[in-house]
Amino acid sequence: MISLNTDICRLLGIEYPIIQAGMAGGPTTAELVAEVSDAGGLGTLGAAYLAPEKLREDILEIRKRTNKPFAVNLFAPVPKDDFSRIDEVKQALQPIYKELAIEEQNAEYRSPDHGEELFRICLEMNVPIISTAFGSLPPEHMASAKAQGVTVITMATTVGEALEAQGKGADAIVAQGSEAGGHRGSFSFDRHPMGAQVGLMALLPQVADAVDVPVIAAGGIADGRGLVAALVQVGTRFVAAKESGAHKAYKQAIFDSDEESTVVTKSFSGRPARGIKNRFIEQFESMGTQPLSFPSHNTVTKEIRGAAAKAGNPEFMSLWAGQATGAMTQEEGAAEIVSSMMDQARALLR
Amino acid sequence: MISLNTDICRLLGIEYPIIQAGMAGGPTTAELVAEVSDAGGLGTLGAAYLAPEKLREDILEIRKRTNKPFAVNLFAPVPKDDFSRIDEVKQALQPIYKELAIEEQNAEYRSPDHGEELFRICLEMNVPIISTAFGSLPPEHMASAKAQGVTVITMATTVGEALEAQGKGADAIVAQGSEAGGHRGSFSFDRHPMGAQVGLMALLPQVADAVDVPVIAAGGIADGRGLVAALVQVGTRFVAAKESGAHKAYKQAIFDSDEESTVVTKSFSGRPARGIKNRFIEQFESMGTQPLSFPSHNTVTKEIRGAAAKAGNPEFMSLWAGQATGAMTQEEGAAEIVSSMMDQARALLR
Repeated sequence: MISLNTDICRLLGIEYPIIQAGMAGGPTTAELVAEVSDAGGLGTLGAAYLAPEKLREDILEIRKRTNKPFAVNLFAPVPKDDFSRIDEVKQALQPIYKELAIEEQNAEYRSPDHGEELFRICLEMNVPIISTAFGSLPPEHMASAKAQGVTVITMATTVGEALEAQGKGADAIVAQGSEAGGHRGSFSFDRHPMGAQVGLMALLPQVADAVDVPVIAAGGIADGRGLVAALVQVGTRFVAAKESGAHKAYKQAIFDSDEESTVVTKSFSGRPARGIKNRFIEQFESMGTQPLSFPSHNTVTKEIRGAAAKAGNPEFMSLWAGQATGAMTQEEGAAEIVSSMMDQARALLR
Repeated sequence: MISLNTDICRLLGIEYPIIQAGMAGGPTTAELVAEVSDAGGLGTLGAAYLAPEKLREDILEIRKRTNKPFAVNLFAPVPKDDFSRIDEVKQALQPIYKELAIEEQNAEYRSPDHGEELFRICLEMNVPIISTAFGSLPPEHMASAKAQGVTVITMATTVGEALEAQGKGADAIVAQGSEAGGHRGSFSFDRHPMGAQVGLMALLPQVADAVDVPVIAAGGIADGRGLVAALVQVGTRFVAAKESGAHKAYKQAIFDSDEESTVVTKSFSGRPARGIKNRFIEQFESMGTQPLSFPSHNTVTKEIRGAAAKAGNPEFMSLWAGQATGAMTQEEGAAEIVSSMMDQARALLR
């Protein structure tokens, strides 16, 4: 039996030490989140890009489907726009606009700025667990969350970030190894411009030694073998779940990928993120143009990602994925993923 | 008790599933190798840069100190020189020659080319285990090794490389995660110019699923926690062992480093290798000059590394190290490292 992680399971009120990662931008439907929680893991709604009314709707829908705990994942602090270099970036994107037949709009770009409201809704609707990427909740948010008994989880990619997160009040730390898919949770870039890329096998024990709060392992984990050593957060395998809202072509790209397929790039969003290398990444990086900062660059590439999704063309979508995709070949139910991971871990420990 | 790896322990004739990595260029003294083997792990002589007479001497010395099995690590196939771009590289190195007061020599560079002889000596002296980096033993070497009952271990950094290594006769595969220190064992560079950088947590299960031979985990493992899941190969912690031949300043740099200190660079040897970032790496990479291929570039930088070693200046030495150095703060005996790793793993499994 798995017994190493009873403390953190108790802290989060879950049965199994499996957390579905809070992947913003589509995959984490209310159905996926509820299925994972109902199966005994912790479902997480990736809410950072949601409109406030959609967040309310999703929370209600999750509660309708399960009475188990779940988490909402936010960006913190809320990223601010900077479009000062927009002309240069649009210039670099011209060939792609042309190829995808996107009629360029001279409309003023502006990224949605609901971060503050999303956080308020979580408190108002008594979301039991809030997790964040890109840093800690700002002090006033942390204080209100704590006052209300919310459990706060902060993502870190280095020992230094983990210590800072603990100092700022995190109840648990997600240690995100370099294997992980999607955005790097990094928030210190002084030593490495793309954030530190420390593999989980090296990162996990060093973070665990440094902090006193429970540490959750993330990155490269897609089956029960990773579970043997740690409480884990699983991303990509849930992107490819039946209940995931990810585009069909995105799921297919995951099934077609292997351990070498991904790269860390800023070309889609302006922040380093791991995804399957496709023509967009190759083409943008070959231009030598620095992307805008996040979230502005993400807002600029939205038209392209949208047109690609509409056309079912994975070459210009952001195909966030980690390095553990080799065994993923078809959609599975989310509950099935949780139970098969547990079965495999139990068999290994027996 | 640790029981997952009895098969591979039996294959190698060792008591504990801990392999000391075959680190060429100084750290693996005969004393270190013998200590690790005598303590129940597998000591490995990093022989690739040794002169033939030194290899003979070291094998005799290891045998004098222990009757347990040990391995010799070689480069395979034997790398060949190419000095066609030597003038450009020397130009880039000028400021460093000046700073270290190296009087430039117009002598013809030539890398030692003993690979064939080193292999013959291993057979002649009945070395029980040969492990290789950079690829598989060439077919004729593989055949002679097998005919003599030698166990052959090949390092791989991707599933494709592991399958190729198995196809060419490897009895076991070292799966080297991106966390690992020193040279990447990569031998396929078509998809990634620096070799694939797949973290161990993602790489290990995918390699294990793909091949039928035992898989040894390498990269980011420096204590008993990594041991719980796998047969492991440990590098950096043994570089910093009392018995290691590594320079005092190199060991100190390891003690001073953390999980963010290293980068993968070709600037010292012409092949991608992970080491602590220092002024040499920064300065050479900022020149924008491509290094020569291996081993030629390694030969060219030898004067600089030699002068730095003589001066005790770690800024111009190659400080190969992995990402798991955070807990290393002082020299330990090699036998002590083996037994403390086993104690820790046992405690975790109890």
